[in-house]
Amino acid sequence: MTGKQPPDQPPGEFELINKFFAPLAAANEGALGLRDDAALIGVRPGYRLVATVDTLVAGVHFQEQDPAGLIARKLLRVNLSDLAAMAAEPVCYLLAISLPNRPDAAWIGDFAAGLAADQAEFGIILAGGDTTATPGPLSLSLTALGQVPEGGEIRRSGAAPGQDIYVSGTIGDAALAVHGIEARGGELAADFAARYRLPQPRVALGPRLRGLASSLVDVSDGLVADLGHICQASGVAADLEVARLPVSDAARAALAREPQLREIVLTGGDDYELLFTADTAHAGALADLARETGVPLSRIGHTHDRTGEGAPLVTVKDEAGEIIGLKSEGYHHF
Amino acid sequence: MTGKQPPDQPPGEFELINKFFAPLAAANEGALGLRDDAALIGVRPGYRLVATVDTLVAGVHFQEQDPAGLIARKLLRVNLSDLAAMAAEPVCYLLAISLPNRPDAAWIGDFAAGLAADQAEFGIILAGGDTTATPGPLSLSLTALGQVPEGGEIRRSGAAPGQDIYVSGTIGDAALAVHGIEARGGELAADFAARYRLPQPRVALGPRLRGLASSLVDVSDGLVADLGHICQASGVAADLEVARLPVSDAARAALAREPQLREIVLTGGDDYELLFTADTAHAGALADLARETGVPLSRIGHTHDRTGEGAPLVTVKDEAGEIIGLKSEGYHHF
Repeated sequence: MTGKQPPDQPPGEFELINKFFAPLAAANEGALGLRDDAALIGVRPGYRLVATVDTLVAGVHFQEQDPAGLIARKLLRVNLSDLAAMAAEPVCYLLAISLPNRPDAAWIGDFAAGLAADQAEFGIILAGGDTTATPGPLSLSLTALGQVPEGGEIRRSGAAPGQDIYVSGTIGDAALAVHGIEARGGELAADFAARYRLPQPRVALGPRLRGLASSLVDVSDGLVADLGHICQASGVAADLEVARLPVSDAARAALAREPQLREIVLTGGDDYELLFTADTAHAGALADLARETGVPLSRIGHTHDRTGEGAPLVTVKDEAGEIIGLKSEGYHHF
Repeated sequence: MTGKQPPDQPPGEFELINKFFAPLAAANEGALGLRDDAALIGVRPGYRLVATVDTLVAGVHFQEQDPAGLIARKLLRVNLSDLAAMAAEPVCYLLAISLPNRPDAAWIGDFAAGLAADQAEFGIILAGGDTTATPGPLSLSLTALGQVPEGGEIRRSGAAPGQDIYVSGTIGDAALAVHGIEARGGELAADFAARYRLPQPRVALGPRLRGLASSLVDVSDGLVADLGHICQASGVAADLEVARLPVSDAARAALAREPQLREIVLTGGDDYELLFTADTAHAGALADLARETGVPLSRIGHTHDRTGEGAPLVTVKDEAGEIIGLKSEGYHHF
């Protein structure tokens, strides 16, 4: 953990951060007390490391007035979701914080407490970081490191025609939280705000999909877009059955009131559920896994051969089997 | 590599980045074309991974108008210096970019070309990243991963009393580049600007110090401050002899004109040289190593027992052996 500020400024803010952050790394021998040039990370024999980074910027990815603990946990969780989407187990993380001003001890304490809570919940630990000042908004980059047995990772590119498509949990709540936010003066929709602010990464489920899922991603860009990523990488096409989409009770009620919200649910993103394909032979094992982990796994469609260059990667069908046209497939992704 | 932007914006900027960044990861099988949820990183048996992160913010750590290629290389190099300071060899890196606006293809092309040049020079390769928009200034976080044989790392805490203190290369140029910058309307001092903009991390030297150096850091906060970190972590004190400080010809000329610049050289920081302690028995081997690598290694002082709680960690002595008092020890660090 390094951080610098000019000698003509009091060190209070950075010492404060160290006071709150050092305990987050205390159980991590390789973090070297956050006081050396870099952290040491042991990797189990036969395993490979998995690495991902995500940045959250105030005003872009979260609301500045959000509770500090929730910001911290969302930051950690979006990265944990990427590890789960490779079927990897969490190991440790590095945190880069750019601070716009001098937050008070309470704010930093809440931020660190949020990290501590999720470290305990998900079995990950701080290894190092960097703190700096910025004239811009609060900006947070987190690099999460996980591990996976060699060959145990599940990529986007493994889907084959004739396989089932599954998604974990429910989808749409996060997008419904943000939908129409301008009309509410920047307020999240109350029924869905919790899910947007605090996603539930499928950390335990991801590694359990080894040997069952043929391809795997997390739903961050939107269900249709992320399914499109699997299709693109695997060279297959997919049919998605709207009637099978798992949604929360609140989303079901909202959809009953406003059927046009269906597109938001399909394309909105930020669900952080796992989306995967599996051979039909694994249906029973997946039902068992859902029971065992307590995470619902819904079969929402199937893959098939791509019929040609111009054919859509993902076809969405309604209850009657009619094709639904979408105005947008979700967030642009590269 | 992931990145998102709202569906109502053209994807041009992010596709542009991918176009320029994907080739930086092309030779890295584990980067999965920057298109999966995370990167896979193999670690050699008997080795541990070393991880460090540093953030550079426009207007804080570099000048917004600096050439994009130099910004990219400085970003990579300050992290490579941290790996070298653990005696680790570079492996790969993850890059988080927050873009304030839509840079043109030329800017991104120059940025990527800078990374490509340093990838080739230092043997490191892109593994993954995240690109996002920010309403603030251009902000860059880079996580560098290296490897070191188990037990081969060199920490800050290994110094013992009665050892020699060495520094590589020359020190002070970067601080002299920034000194008095306000008086020059924000311009770096011409004689020293190159060293500030493009530090020279001691990537080849660091791993060669295994078995020779007892403690090791890079000089980023300032020579006196970083030597203080070694003393603090190792429980020793140090005498630093000003007459032995290695400086560039330009710095020597500046010091002859303005002797008071000595304090800038001692405390200014951003040198990215390696500072280490070694048993006196290794003097010959270190001289050989300097000849072999072409990197000067200067003995600049020695360690001794800490005489008491209140005693200074680092005592700076002039040519006559008189103690020099410093107004500041350098950048605050935690």
